[in-house]
Amino acid sequence: MTRAAIVGAGMGAFGVRPESPKRLFAEAVAEALASVEKGMDARDVQEAWVGSTAFGGWQLGNTAAYLVEQAGLPGVPARRVENACASSGFALRDAAQAIRSGKVDVALVGGFEKMNDVSGLHKRYWLGVSGDTAWERMAGATFPGVYAMMAARHMHEFGTTREDLAAVAVKNHANGAKNPKAQFQKPITLEKALASPVVASPLTMLDCCSTTDGAAAVLLASERVARRYTDTPVWVEGSGAATDFLAVHDRPTLTTLEATRRAAREAYDEARVQPRDVQVAEVHDCFTIAEVLAVEDLGFAEKGQGGRYRGPVRVNTSGGLKAKGHPLGATGAGQAVEAFEQLQGHAGARQVQGAEVALTHNVGGSGATCVVHVYRRG
Amino acid sequence: MTRAAIVGAGMGAFGVRPESPKRLFAEAVAEALASVEKGMDARDVQEAWVGSTAFGGWQLGNTAAYLVEQAGLPGVPARRVENACASSGFALRDAAQAIRSGKVDVALVGGFEKMNDVSGLHKRYWLGVSGDTAWERMAGATFPGVYAMMAARHMHEFGTTREDLAAVAVKNHANGAKNPKAQFQKPITLEKALASPVVASPLTMLDCCSTTDGAAAVLLASERVARRYTDTPVWVEGSGAATDFLAVHDRPTLTTLEATRRAAREAYDEARVQPRDVQVAEVHDCFTIAEVLAVEDLGFAEKGQGGRYRGPVRVNTSGGLKAKGHPLGATGAGQAVEAFEQLQGHAGARQVQGAEVALTHNVGGSGATCVVHVYRRG
Repeated sequence: MTRAAIVGAGMGAFGVRPESPKRLFAEAVAEALASVEKGMDARDVQEAWVGSTAFGGWQLGNTAAYLVEQAGLPGVPARRVENACASSGFALRDAAQAIRSGKVDVALVGGFEKMNDVSGLHKRYWLGVSGDTAWERMAGATFPGVYAMMAARHMHEFGTTREDLAAVAVKNHANGAKNPKAQFQKPITLEKALASPVVASPLTMLDCCSTTDGAAAVLLASERVARRYTDTPVWVEGSGAATDFLAVHDRPTLTTLEATRRAAREAYDEARVQPRDVQVAEVHDCFTIAEVLAVEDLGFAEKGQGGRYRGPVRVNTSGGLKAKGHPLGATGAGQAVEAFEQLQGHAGARQVQGAEVALTHNVGGSGATCVVHVYRRG
Repeated sequence: MTRAAIVGAGMGAFGVRPESPKRLFAEAVAEALASVEKGMDARDVQEAWVGSTAFGGWQLGNTAAYLVEQAGLPGVPARRVENACASSGFALRDAAQAIRSGKVDVALVGGFEKMNDVSGLHKRYWLGVSGDTAWERMAGATFPGVYAMMAARHMHEFGTTREDLAAVAVKNHANGAKNPKAQFQKPITLEKALASPVVASPLTMLDCCSTTDGAAAVLLASERVARRYTDTPVWVEGSGAATDFLAVHDRPTLTTLEATRRAAREAYDEARVQPRDVQVAEVHDCFTIAEVLAVEDLGFAEKGQGGRYRGPVRVNTSGGLKAKGHPLGATGAGQAVEAFEQLQGHAGARQVQGAEVALTHNVGGSGATCVVHVYRRG
């Protein structure tokens, strides 16, 4: 098995983007190509995996072929990978596997979603259908409602407070303020977060991420060719994935995402690292409570202590879903962009000095799917 | 790179299936497990790839997690692969790659679609959105219309006749009559095919396949473990894939699917075979003209001679999309089921004696995506 490295990664700004899908995706691919230290010709790309949940209702079949054609890569074999909000995290896993098998030397991983200027049916509707349909959506349980149950239970079991949750939002908005690609680049105060209108008690508006438009792209290369493109490849050292029951009532607990724990174990084992070896982590904070669960389930904090976690791992330096914005299918690839920039030392005002090992954690639905990657600066 | 083999494959009947999606998919998985010569425990499955275009509008996100859970494989990492009607052919490609990389020893490839008892929006609507949207769908060009243009041009350039096209339907319905899983198990006459109502001239109703309900499942194993499951593994010797422009006006010709040619070349090269080495082929006959183009573009017949092709390769022994039925996302996996049964010698009345090498050819849209696999009896 050969190794796979990220040699380039880029994205346009996440947020309200009135441009067409093809323009958004082409922009991300161009940014990724431009980020390749020693340059890369688009024709070097041999195969593509594109994560997208719904594609904004425009081109619902053959979307991957459409996007690679429009991004200037006609003919490149491509497929769409759909796993709700974990779509492009799984696209990365499959692309890395193809490189490790020796079949492909240069692969594109893309992520895309358009949530803002599409018709009603193809907008918020899609979100609910990524959770359980029979027992949750049909009964009116939205994602804020499901995560609110997790938050309430975490408070009950472990004494987590609304201030603990709000502190996650404050931290991530402070990080987002340093990220020129983030949807929200303005810090918020704890008071403001706490005074925000309730969406689903105990979660307020500022506990929830913004589902929005965006695209991100990652260029992977095999060990054989990686150093043609960069002297600092970012090796994909570990990839872990798992699924869980869609309906939360089928799970033994509301305060652990078992899919995260299992995906993390696989990724750590493959990378031969421990949670303490990680310096930078992008975790799936679709809600503040989701970040609290993630830092516990990824092994950074003891179970129950996630609400009070302050390091040493620097979590969501990009601003996370919370401040960077959450274009469903683009989020996993967007997380890898941040990991790449941090490990290459190009994260600007967000740079974590001396970062050697990074992790990304991408969740679909309320934990039905999860994929974790561990990267090492090479 | 290790090799990947099919060690089990199964499907329920394609056709009008009022059962729920989960029941249909679970049936296919159970059939696949039951087909494993020396038996397989569902818990041996380590990872799953599920092809589906639209999933019938029920569970539009996290569909793969939903299906594996409902098929008795909770926790197994899974993702949905979408490439229009080539979805599960690409799922097979990605699963084989994961096995070849050494990461996975036993993988499930599933395919699923429900086209009959779903609401209007989520039914025929989906079909159009797998072709080009901006220039074709918005202008009213349906798939029958686009393939009718290909047929008309093929007639003009090469003298192909309506009888040539109708003969494809007659052959595939005769094959379908021997397949207990086919939607249509009744032979038709050339006269009946020619007298069928016109859908898009020169294509009649009996030139068109039936989009319908169905699921199929394939179990792949690595070289390391394959013989635990069967003494006759069916090796995936070659996998090829390509994309093309979605809009047919962007392509240099209407009478070749360039994606087929490129995918076939990759698959033949990897398998180190020539078209003449193939005995059995399942090709993507969404319309009779599509089979004519396929036998040419796969190298079985000279360009222009596909309408008169009668062998030696036995094409669509299952009945093809034409008679077996075409549940979009399930078709690629369904083709692999036929290749497996033919090479294991379990194809019953359809058995091609002495078959050693088989090929499957799965197309998305009007040729925007294509994936070809070559298999060898082990």
